[in-house]
Amino acid sequence: MTEQITVQLAETRREKPDQSNLGFGRIFTDHMFMMDYTEGTGWHDARIVPYQPLTLEPSAMVFHYGQTVFEGMKAYLTKEGRVFLFRPEKNMVRLNRSNERLCIPQIDGDFVIEGLKKLIAVDQEWIPTAEGTSLYIRPFIIATEPFLGVAPAKNYKFMIIMSPVGLYYKEGIAPVKILVENDYVRAVQGGTGEAKTGGNYAASLKAQELASGKEYSQVLWLDGVEKKYIEEVGSMNVFFKIDGEVVTPALNGSILHGVTRDSVIQLLKHWNVPVSERRLSMEEIAQAYRDGKLEEAFGTGTAAVISPIGEFLWGEEKMVLNNGKTGELSKKIYDSITGIQKGALEDPFGWITEVPISESK
Amino acid sequence: MTEQITVQLAETRREKPDQSNLGFGRIFTDHMFMMDYTEGTGWHDARIVPYQPLTLEPSAMVFHYGQTVFEGMKAYLTKEGRVFLFRPEKNMVRLNRSNERLCIPQIDGDFVIEGLKKLIAVDQEWIPTAEGTSLYIRPFIIATEPFLGVAPAKNYKFMIIMSPVGLYYKEGIAPVKILVENDYVRAVQGGTGEAKTGGNYAASLKAQELASGKEYSQVLWLDGVEKKYIEEVGSMNVFFKIDGEVVTPALNGSILHGVTRDSVIQLLKHWNVPVSERRLSMEEIAQAYRDGKLEEAFGTGTAAVISPIGEFLWGEEKMVLNNGKTGELSKKIYDSITGIQKGALEDPFGWITEVPISESK
Ligand SMILES: Cc1ncc(COP(=O)(O)O)c(C=O)c1O
Ligand SMILES: Cc1ncc(COP(=O)(O)O)c(C=O)c1O
Repeated sequence: MTEQITVQLAETRREKPDQSNLGFGRIFTDHMFMMDYTEGTGWHDARIVPYQPLTLEPSAMVFHYGQTVFEGMKAYLTKEGRVFLFRPEKNMVRLNRSNERLCIPQIDGDFVIEGLKKLIAVDQEWIPTAEGTSLYIRPFIIATEPFLGVAPAKNYKFMIIMSPVGLYYKEGIAPVKILVENDYVRAVQGGTGEAKTGGNYAASLKAQELASGKEYSQVLWLDGVEKKYIEEVGSMNVFFKIDGEVVTPALNGSILHGVTRDSVIQLLKHWNVPVSERRLSMEEIAQAYRDGKLEEAFGTGTAAVISPIGEFLWGEEKMVLNNGKTGELSKKIYDSITGIQKGALEDPFGWITEVPISESK
Repeated sequence: MTEQITVQLAETRREKPDQSNLGFGRIFTDHMFMMDYTEGTGWHDARIVPYQPLTLEPSAMVFHYGQTVFEGMKAYLTKEGRVFLFRPEKNMVRLNRSNERLCIPQIDGDFVIEGLKKLIAVDQEWIPTAEGTSLYIRPFIIATEPFLGVAPAKNYKFMIIMSPVGLYYKEGIAPVKILVENDYVRAVQGGTGEAKTGGNYAASLKAQELASGKEYSQVLWLDGVEKKYIEEVGSMNVFFKIDGEVVTPALNGSILHGVTRDSVIQLLKHWNVPVSERRLSMEEIAQAYRDGKLEEAFGTGTAAVISPIGEFLWGEEKMVLNNGKTGELSKKIYDSITGIQKGALEDPFGWITEVPISESK
């Protein structure tokens, strides 16, 4: 795609929020990136425009048949005032994998990253500077064709919106309590679990709500067939340290290919910490716990980066890890990844893409 | 709910479409019904307004997390000019079941049916009169809260839009070819299969697309666990007549509680035709076919009412039923249900709700 990206600047810029209380995903920057897809023409009219409401027909297919995909990534401001993206090309590959599953046309990842860089440059003042903050980036695609028929749409909108965010968990890197879900199912092989699409998250709400009622912050999903094997947590992949070895469920077709997950695996290999991706039953984890060999557990995801797990509840069995404190390895991984993201540590992996912000604001 | 429904009429009425070529779900009437939900207040501001685009924040949760449910029903014009709804209370019960699964607040079914009747009265000229036509009714709910967080939304919109439709299959009641799906999965126990929510349909697109490429009009879904047991077809429940007995998969938690399905079962019982709801494997169907005992198969759904199945393809095994012609029982059920819907036959079941259309147009 060699198309131009047009830029229409907002007439006034909104006031920036108080950085000590950003929350997550409620405040948006002054601009957004958009492009449209029309059958026959492909993606067209890439543009940066003032952040504004969308106008869609009530019959737009996204409202009825859930044909939508999204991504989640972040931009970080370094101490030196440089702006970094973390492995954005991985998000583009995953977006296209989601597109493939949902019958949505492929996007040109390099072109979208160019658009994103432009958008960030325009809204660079929105990148928060306080400790633990960043600019959350939400690319998404929705089916816009006005048609009440179950078929892939002929028209789509691709958009990127951005939100300055604080720490995902207000407490910072502090252990969370996780409920192992035995009734509800998020995804199954042959379904859409590997895609980042709305329906997976809609399916997860009920179990999440029940867990919250019991003071558990997220649920751990088991496989949909036997309800034995560990899949992932709410919006994180999950890792366990058992007797010195780190294990995480293999990418089996029903869990998300997390970018943080991949980064953690690379980092552990770099450190020569044994790490393996394989099928992992909840019984194995519980047995390791009973044997005193379950040393740490943590979730990985863009929002929280590393989220140490302090407790699992599986049926009647409660497992408290590390006295409910953050494990040593969890902390070390967190510091390393956030250090690279914020430019405080060297990046031996080529994970960082710098955003040129020389352009006028 | 004792709230008033306000009515704002369109200034001009659009031209009605050519009834010989209505298609399905592309043309909408002059008005729509809406109400809003706000946490703390509940559903409010029920209103009939001119059909118009929706304006939503790009961060509205429906675009990201698929929190949406819908219904599908029809209004029929009788020869005498009366307007009938077919079991609308069943759709309201199902809508609330879907709401429960998706963490969407319950609606007051009676109140919504009142709103729907008002809407139909306002747009009564849109109900097509030609043979096989009707007014398709699409109630739906979307999460509108502007928030990028995976949690039940605090704001929703409920809407009803209506579309004059022709026969769902252009050929009328003519047998369709169905591909038995062995790879992709639509739903699994513990998932959202029983709810009428966008994600289920999004998940179905890929298999549907592959089937279309092989000239099959829809797929037959098998259970997500063993891929052995029959669930349902695209947007229909499925029935088989084996050696004089009619069988259909039991409501097992992962298939939709079809209103047409329930009506067919009632009708068969009324006729003293043996009918049973139970677990049904694809192997059992294939064996009945090989033994020459698979007499008929048909799908049931609001859109097509009865859709005879002329052929199944299951892996390498092709089963042609009834020489690819419409079965006798399929035809009899179709004639009976559409007869009741159109007021040509008596309604011994209390299925019909009449819409008063005395109000000014
Ligand atoms: C279901 C699910 N699993 C895992 C993850 C973690 O993926 P990533 O590390 O790319 O953010 C996410 C968040 O994106 C998610 O939504
Ligand atoms: C998945 C699915 N199954 C079955 C049906 C048939 O249900 P009904 O007879 O209520 O239209 C539909 C259509 O509504 C459907 O979408």
